[in-house]
Amino acid sequence: MDALQAEMDRRRPGQSKITTQRKEGDRIEILSGLQDGVTLGTPILMMVRNEDARSRDYDETETKYRPSHADFAYDQKYGIRALSGGGRASARETVGRVAAGALAKQILRERFGVEIVGYVEQIHELRATVDPTHVSLGDVEATPVRCPDPQMAEKMIALIEETRKKGDSLGGVVECVARGVPTGWGEPVFDKLEADLAKAVMSLPACKGFEIGSGFAGTKMTGAQHNDPFIPAEGSARTTTNYSGGIQGGISNGMPIVLRGAFKPTATIVQEQQTVTTEFQPTTISGKGRHDPCVLPRAVPMVEAMVALVLIDHALRQKAIS
Amino acid sequence: MDALQAEMDRRRPGQSKITTQRKEGDRIEILSGLQDGVTLGTPILMMVRNEDARSRDYDETETKYRPSHADFAYDQKYGIRALSGGGRASARETVGRVAAGALAKQILRERFGVEIVGYVEQIHELRATVDPTHVSLGDVEATPVRCPDPQMAEKMIALIEETRKKGDSLGGVVECVARGVPTGWGEPVFDKLEADLAKAVMSLPACKGFEIGSGFAGTKMTGAQHNDPFIPAEGSARTTTNYSGGIQGGISNGMPIVLRGAFKPTATIVQEQQTVTTEFQPTTISGKGRHDPCVLPRAVPMVEAMVALVLIDHALRQKAIS
Amino acid sequence: MDALQAEMDRRRPGQSKITTQRKEGDRIEILSGLQDGVTLGTPILMMVRNEDARSRDYDETETKYRPSHADFAYDQKYGIRALSGGGRASARETVGRVAAGALAKQILRERFGVEIVGYVEQIHELRATVDPTHVSLGDVEATPVRCPDPQMAEKMIALIEETRKKGDSLGGVVECVARGVPTGWGEPVFDKLEADLAKAVMSLPACKGFEIGSGFAGTKMTGAQHNDPFIPAEGSARTTTNYSGGIQGGISNGMPIVLRGAFKPTATIVQEQQTVTTEFQPTTISGKGRHDPCVLPRAVPMVEAMVALVLIDHALRQKAIS
Amino acid sequence: MDALQAEMDRRRPGQSKITTQRKEGDRIEILSGLQDGVTLGTPILMMVRNEDARSRDYDETETKYRPSHADFAYDQKYGIRALSGGGRASARETVGRVAAGALAKQILRERFGVEIVGYVEQIHELRATVDPTHVSLGDVEATPVRCPDPQMAEKMIALIEETRKKGDSLGGVVECVARGVPTGWGEPVFDKLEADLAKAVMSLPACKGFEIGSGFAGTKMTGAQHNDPFIPAEGSARTTTNYSGGIQGGISNGMPIVLRGAFKPTATIVQEQQTVTTEFQPTTISGKGRHDPCVLPRAVPMVEAMVALVLIDHALRQKAIS
Repeated sequence: MDALQAEMDRRRPGQSKITTQRKEGDRIEILSGLQDGVTLGTPILMMVRNEDARSRDYDETETKYRPSHADFAYDQKYGIRALSGGGRASARETVGRVAAGALAKQILRERFGVEIVGYVEQIHELRATVDPTHVSLGDVEATPVRCPDPQMAEKMIALIEETRKKGDSLGGVVECVARGVPTGWGEPVFDKLEADLAKAVMSLPACKGFEIGSGFAGTKMTGAQHNDPFIPAEGSARTTTNYSGGIQGGISNGMPIVLRGAFKPTATIVQEQQTVTTEFQPTTISGKGRHDPCVLPRAVPMVEAMVALVLIDHALRQKAIS
Repeated sequence: MDALQAEMDRRRPGQSKITTQRKEGDRIEILSGLQDGVTLGTPILMMVRNEDARSRDYDETETKYRPSHADFAYDQKYGIRALSGGGRASARETVGRVAAGALAKQILRERFGVEIVGYVEQIHELRATVDPTHVSLGDVEATPVRCPDPQMAEKMIALIEETRKKGDSLGGVVECVARGVPTGWGEPVFDKLEADLAKAVMSLPACKGFEIGSGFAGTKMTGAQHNDPFIPAEGSARTTTNYSGGIQGGISNGMPIVLRGAFKPTATIVQEQQTVTTEFQPTTISGKGRHDPCVLPRAVPMVEAMVALVLIDHALRQKAIS
Repeated sequence: MDALQAEMDRRRPGQSKITTQRKEGDRIEILSGLQDGVTLGTPILMMVRNEDARSRDYDETETKYRPSHADFAYDQKYGIRALSGGGRASARETVGRVAAGALAKQILRERFGVEIVGYVEQIHELRATVDPTHVSLGDVEATPVRCPDPQMAEKMIALIEETRKKGDSLGGVVECVARGVPTGWGEPVFDKLEADLAKAVMSLPACKGFEIGSGFAGTKMTGAQHNDPFIPAEGSARTTTNYSGGIQGGISNGMPIVLRGAFKPTATIVQEQQTVTTEFQPTTISGKGRHDPCVLPRAVPMVEAMVALVLIDHALRQKAIS
Repeated sequence: MDALQAEMDRRRPGQSKITTQRKEGDRIEILSGLQDGVTLGTPILMMVRNEDARSRDYDETETKYRPSHADFAYDQKYGIRALSGGGRASARETVGRVAAGALAKQILRERFGVEIVGYVEQIHELRATVDPTHVSLGDVEATPVRCPDPQMAEKMIALIEETRKKGDSLGGVVECVARGVPTGWGEPVFDKLEADLAKAVMSLPACKGFEIGSGFAGTKMTGAQHNDPFIPAEGSARTTTNYSGGIQGGISNGMPIVLRGAFKPTATIVQEQQTVTTEFQPTTISGKGRHDPCVLPRAVPMVEAMVALVLIDHALRQKAIS
């Protein structure tokens, strides 16, 4: 339970001056599946009430479409839209993902020896240098920006502060490593491990890109450079490089799984922008809600959670057939 | 039926000197669901027999693990592995995707007015300039490399030839646009349209990365630059830029859907490489099968097929609720 | 909302002297999906808190397995079991089914013109005479036993009272009719409409049998007797008999869908019974909780709910393809 | 492979004079998943070509709806219908179920010690006496009617012959027992073991009813009669009666699983029947195809197959979590 709440607090807004100032308590109430702190094997229902939604902050959005938000698309799809805080398109829905992911991480660690560490690798043009094989949770949590490269972290924090003052916002890249995943997780053809990871990470708000292993950079290598040579290792094999990112043919090969998610700059900005009313008349809008100028630090536990949920699913599938 | 076979021929190896020389006929036999050329509404079973698998070509793979292939991972998962041509990890399985996708494309075009065009945007360091809003199938098919930028296409072909002679291989990027997708396709939270597209494309062999709209490049923009301003358009709205790639909050917004898949260089190369035997002893291996030095041209119809399959699924979901 | 709560009240214990005397308020709290009484198109989360679980009533069950209850099976499956009120094996979980079914019934009625009426057809040896083509909700609710045959209803009530005094319990049959289902709902082969209905009804607590149309009685007829002759009807066709129960080959044929669920006598009885302790020593047990001597009246809204949920699912599938 | 083909031959028409005289060879061709007789862990594709469909036999059905067949419902759903032999509504589709079930039975027997035996319990008014705890495959196959009660089997065969001569048809009940199922298979609430079994059996052609354990007869017992008392048994518990049919609360309790499926009399009969044309004009029709006067003997391997497929699914689910 404590581990769970700690994870929730990592996602929660208002953690530091570089994130949004909404004060959501994010207290978890567990409604089923636990008895005296022991799981019952049956579904665990966790509830987090939305305590600090000041719907007044969003009033203008009743009559104007915020650029690069889901308002317009929702109205087109449903003909109606939740007005307080973005409804299901609000990033607040990730609280449920992080809660479920916290449980999954715990099981993965204790039952399967899998460790998942996410971190901010890049904000805007600032790119950190991180060794995914050794980075620890402690390294990540050492700075409020969740970047384990201390020099770069400082620059990132300064840039975020500066951007906030301009009423603008920033994007970036979260990298995540899963170490200790045994060989054999993942299914051929349709439910390849990298495909399920891609769907999971791309379903996070503001995520526009996904890479596994060498990703887009790997397209500029030749096969001779990119292939990961096998060498013997304790009665099995390992590779000397890891451009494959721990997955070959959709199945884990025992090397660390390394992936990245690209997050666009936050859509809500204070600067005035061109848009239309819900009656399709030209107008302008500027954000007044308490929004993050940069979601990257809070996206770290979200990416970890999604990775954990995909891995636990494949862990159970593999257990079923072995 | 003719349209179907034409699509199969786009995927099929042996189309030109820059692709593998295996002569797979890829003739489709339709076993159910059609009566006198009319669909019955019930499942359509299409079968393509694997006519030209010379399993002798692959013999060395019985005792050695090919680097960056799925051989090792399959053996670890199943304890046994199909020896002829890679089994389910062979890219030959994509014949089924292309066949299903050809049907989906036909329905999308005729029933929903959706047009899907894929093309090679990049091979190794060579990057084409293509306008996704106007590129046509004719432009794409004008060159064997399926790159609608004629100057760049020539350079790509030359580079592939040169690489083949060196016994090496190349990767690259396929871009794909879906035009005419109405607003409202896609589901909030878990089955976001971009998430389903990511899973579909990332499940293709050799795919290591996925982007929608601005993708990774968008992380270096600020919110003020990246937000797509709305303007009035024929009783509705459109955006003046399309960094969102046609999807906002998981739901299509009526703009062209633009996405990219990153394909690593082909793993099978003629050059000698370091690896281990299936008994985990060090050894070397060099490819002897007839493999593509660059899968990108053949990946184009595969990406189109996966996009079509995701879109038809969401088209039907939307029909169900509207 | 009022319609919803009314439906909940039909399922709720403590409605009359023939049902259990637990006083569960069953007040629905709606947590998402509604705004000012209008649905948003996004998921509707309804919560009903379990207000009157006196776990003391069940204390003996910590150390003894109740005959024909799920206690033993749960312990064998999970190695642990919820001790208060049966956990997920408690019939209290049906509150969620009835709530969802109430919504489904409303949509089926208003959007598709489908009317669903369930009723008690049989309790123990007492079998009512009911015409499924004309029976109304009013007829059903006219007696606390929910049997629209008034003479038989009185006998049933008397038998339930008498059985309660003996500390014993009774089973019976719920029949349910869905009128106005259009032709064409249901999928060939695997998701046949009758198969989905069977799964839905058989998933209710205490249900041991399912029939559609002629059911088991139909096995004693010949084909010449059992076949439903078609006759012309308003530009289409109808059948003169309805042994098929409104479904042919898994697909609705426009006639009323008539089905039955068999419910065993309640397992919890006051009479002393032979059993074992959780240490597998012989012992005896007698029920002390406030349990129904006969669940049939309360099973009526549950069966209706399950039928409604299956029908709405197939209604949407059919909409998707037509 | 031999075991597989033997199972196919049990389902196949033309086995004896009491079944249809179509000569379908039902030879299985295995297209994937096997290498030198050993499974690869990847999907096994089995194909059986439809060798003896004489579509001429069915010609009248192009213009007339056969009573209690799916013709009318398919036309209403799809607006078009396969004309040769009933298309997907033909019982020929069960060949795939039996093939998959044969594999499942083999795995259940060898890996889990589960034995599945089905048999004809009733034809028309003739009801056999069978002990589900001891009946063997040999007993069942001893007569062409697959009824392990020899006296009753003779009467059944005589009745079928007589009915065939009259151009009429018969229904009946298949009972099936699964012995050796360990405790703990099945999921609470929605995927209860009995619910999944009900769906599987009810998806077979001509099936109109399903029972588990005491079924409909159990509704006429009281709780004191119906509850299965637990007694100690080898460090665990068993019940002295088995009215629960081996499942309590959706989860197997280690006792034999006993279930029944009710099959209506075959719809195709030689006698003339009233119906309508596809233009909805009154007409008459009489069956001319080579149809079974009674499908019960051939339904036995179908029921066994469906039970096996459900059990293997739950076996794997349980393996995943234990």
